[in-house]
Amino acid sequence: MSNPQEPEAITALRAHLATIVDLRNSAAVLGWDQETYMPVRGAAARAEQLGTLTRLAHDRFVAPTTATLLDAAEASDQLDPASDDGAIIQMVRRDYARLIRLPAEFVAARARAASLSTLIWRQARPRNDFAAFRPALQEMMEFARREADYLGYEDHPYDALLDHYEPGITSRDIDGIFARLREVIIPLVRSCIERDHRSDDTFRTAEYDPIEQRAFGLKVAGAFGFDLSRGRLDESAHPFTQSFDPDDVRITTRYQVNSLSGVFAIFHEAGHALYELGISHSLARTWAGHGASLGLHESQSRLWENLIGRSQPFWQFYYQPLQDHFPSLRRAKLDAFYRDVNRVQPSLIRVEADEVTYNLHIMLRYELEKELIMGSLAVSKLPEAWNDRMQTYLGITPPTDADGVMQDTHWASALIGYFPTYTLGNILSVQLFEAARRAHPTLSEEIARGQFATLLGWLREHVHTHGRKFLPPEIVRQATGTALTPEPYLQYLQQKFGELYGIPQPVPARRMA
Amino acid sequence: MSNPQEPEAITALRAHLATIVDLRNSAAVLGWDQETYMPVRGAAARAEQLGTLTRLAHDRFVAPTTATLLDAAEASDQLDPASDDGAIIQMVRRDYARLIRLPAEFVAARARAASLSTLIWRQARPRNDFAAFRPALQEMMEFARREADYLGYEDHPYDALLDHYEPGITSRDIDGIFARLREVIIPLVRSCIERDHRSDDTFRTAEYDPIEQRAFGLKVAGAFGFDLSRGRLDESAHPFTQSFDPDDVRITTRYQVNSLSGVFAIFHEAGHALYELGISHSLARTWAGHGASLGLHESQSRLWENLIGRSQPFWQFYYQPLQDHFPSLRRAKLDAFYRDVNRVQPSLIRVEADEVTYNLHIMLRYELEKELIMGSLAVSKLPEAWNDRMQTYLGITPPTDADGVMQDTHWASALIGYFPTYTLGNILSVQLFEAARRAHPTLSEEIARGQFATLLGWLREHVHTHGRKFLPPEIVRQATGTALTPEPYLQYLQQKFGELYGIPQPVPARRMA
Repeated sequence: MSNPQEPEAITALRAHLATIVDLRNSAAVLGWDQETYMPVRGAAARAEQLGTLTRLAHDRFVAPTTATLLDAAEASDQLDPASDDGAIIQMVRRDYARLIRLPAEFVAARARAASLSTLIWRQARPRNDFAAFRPALQEMMEFARREADYLGYEDHPYDALLDHYEPGITSRDIDGIFARLREVIIPLVRSCIERDHRSDDTFRTAEYDPIEQRAFGLKVAGAFGFDLSRGRLDESAHPFTQSFDPDDVRITTRYQVNSLSGVFAIFHEAGHALYELGISHSLARTWAGHGASLGLHESQSRLWENLIGRSQPFWQFYYQPLQDHFPSLRRAKLDAFYRDVNRVQPSLIRVEADEVTYNLHIMLRYELEKELIMGSLAVSKLPEAWNDRMQTYLGITPPTDADGVMQDTHWASALIGYFPTYTLGNILSVQLFEAARRAHPTLSEEIARGQFATLLGWLREHVHTHGRKFLPPEIVRQATGTALTPEPYLQYLQQKFGELYGIPQPVPARRMA
Repeated sequence: MSNPQEPEAITALRAHLATIVDLRNSAAVLGWDQETYMPVRGAAARAEQLGTLTRLAHDRFVAPTTATLLDAAEASDQLDPASDDGAIIQMVRRDYARLIRLPAEFVAARARAASLSTLIWRQARPRNDFAAFRPALQEMMEFARREADYLGYEDHPYDALLDHYEPGITSRDIDGIFARLREVIIPLVRSCIERDHRSDDTFRTAEYDPIEQRAFGLKVAGAFGFDLSRGRLDESAHPFTQSFDPDDVRITTRYQVNSLSGVFAIFHEAGHALYELGISHSLARTWAGHGASLGLHESQSRLWENLIGRSQPFWQFYYQPLQDHFPSLRRAKLDAFYRDVNRVQPSLIRVEADEVTYNLHIMLRYELEKELIMGSLAVSKLPEAWNDRMQTYLGITPPTDADGVMQDTHWASALIGYFPTYTLGNILSVQLFEAARRAHPTLSEEIARGQFATLLGWLREHVHTHGRKFLPPEIVRQATGTALTPEPYLQYLQQKFGELYGIPQPVPARRMA
């Protein structure tokens, strides 16, 4: 652990933080178990255990020791600001300034309550029982409001929450991005629906054996670079990725017999996992040993799920193996399949939405979250507000709350201020993919041969390896040469779905004389 | 958590201990995951995480705060010595006096080393590579010696280790018990072997599908009282039970296609689990929330595995369901099956040994452990010493170290001083079962009807519910009316196997005129 050349102050800070990181990663193991294998009546004790681990990690981090060690490390004349330690210490300072504001008892109480609330949600959702879930949701919203008050904010309490998931972004930024997205996406959805021709029924009537979904999903994830010696694939109510270390990163999916959604969830979660698996081993057990933000994380999951996993070159290679796993697809043509997995259609469930309508689901959640935080919307009115907004954005109304307001685990798990990062991820996925393509112009041809090593190598070098050493805007600028901007993403959507639906393309501005 | 009627000193001590209990139970979750689902390369990080949780739990327990809180609680005039708190505080005082002697760094280093050593064992065993395992084993023995030195002892360093697993018992007690067991068991084994008639080959040539072993094992465990809403059954290299709370107790087994050993391991581990599941819920998150000792624990596992699961009444009821799961047994008679599962035969693997030879495996390990601790046997000479002693006790020599000295996980996992508790468990299982039968003379008839509620109820009331509130000798005395004694166990063996093998019975002393 200790290095004779290393200044003592830095060694001491690193050891102090390693204990906290171990506590957090241990809590992650308990969280993973809770969602995958825990017997149902283990929930109460698990909530206490998670509460304790979370409280101990928080207490240690906000203890005066951290400030003393940080001061000493920052003052060390041997600290190279360009080194890993230099970058990590800046990040620790930032987090310390933030977390010192949250009382330990608040953090523990929220962890315990969130663990129980998640369980309540998991039981209430299949029974379509919003009333049973409502008090827990109410409590989660109160925790969110109190958190914002503790943390403080300039413009909007939402900013205090968002900063935890996406440092460097405010709700004003999100408002601007969503306004621009609406301009393009709402007419694009309309154009697609107008031109919709019901696709080959083969895909909707086929049965997709979960065992085959798992086998095919793992085959593809393995080709992407997801390695079962350093990870697992299990099932859970809501797919997720959990990392305990750069050498132990686990994903989950859920299978439905009447769709391939379990397979696409594997692609998606494998993208998250590849990020964590690609973090430099020198950052293991340090404060920078996980991904830099949720937006960057989602850029990786959406890149592998959509830019690869719903692309024409990918299916050129993988449609045949897919047909081997699902013989009922044997008569169906590749082109019909490609159209089917990219069919634009307003739908109820976010995680199964096509790429075009997906962001409308996020806007809806973001708007409701803001209103709930501000108190202008009561939790009791939430199902109605949800359904109204589904009608406005997507022209459909959920038949049940299970397929409406209760579909996601986030709010139940105290993850409030989280949803906009999904759209940031979509936007960044295209910015990063285009940057990789500029560096390696033959990327699409490699993908059409089922080869992903060049792409993964580029992502590792420019995104993954850094872990949480830098703030997301810095990683994006270093990797792509520009700041976050929705334009490449909107062009991607217009081009891909314009071609799929035969929509006349606007002449791109840059090609004009 | 806090009760207005409760003295503050006791509330404070309880909260302090609850955090430590949560840390320990969290470490147990990580340990369970390590043995069941952890990807192989997650081991290094897991060792660090376990080291940290173990160190934090130890640090908190031996901190001056504990002494201060203990002093205050003991001095409180509101403390009722007969209450749960009164009993728990005595146990805490005892453990504190013991654990304060172990340096925190020692505890953390051993936890880390044991985690890695377990992994090395798990990889070396299938490769039959003792040389690869030797340095880790050497290290574990050195930790054991150092632990004994830290703790101190009167007669033998082994006593310091044993006290952790079986408080109130010394190696002198064990020596006496083993001497008595040898007097009866060695001639009994010889008599059985002389009278052995190779049993029906059906059982040895049948294939036992692991899926059916699991289904049948769970059916029986469920009838015993093991409930999947409060537990799980998984697979691991070595069967074990792990409890995180009286409402989350998990068992594992391993299946072999050519035997029912996976089923008997389920019976065994279910016995352990029923103990933990039966602990009073009022003891959850207290210092007394787990079983009282390994010997008492093993008394429960061996009771359900052998006194029930290898008994005639049990198979009168369950042989038919077994045949339904394994149709190749349909032509075989119940009596032949009963003889087969009770066949006395010197064998290599402890966990698969019959009831009569089983204790010889324990004696061998106990003797070797003592010599290793004293330094009179070098780890490098251990395989040879193991094989020599197998020849002496059982008349056979393991063809490989995998089936010899490397078969058990205990030494790899720093569990040294543990083995004798298996024999204590055998002895206690009969003492307790006879006490239950004295209270409920129709117990055997209930078992022959597949009914176990009376037995479980008696065990819960007299053993399980107390958790670790009392020392094992006190629990045994309260439950059976006598101290630990091997005589009922030896009578049981002589009677059961005397009948099975047609050995002339000695006239019992008590029936003499």
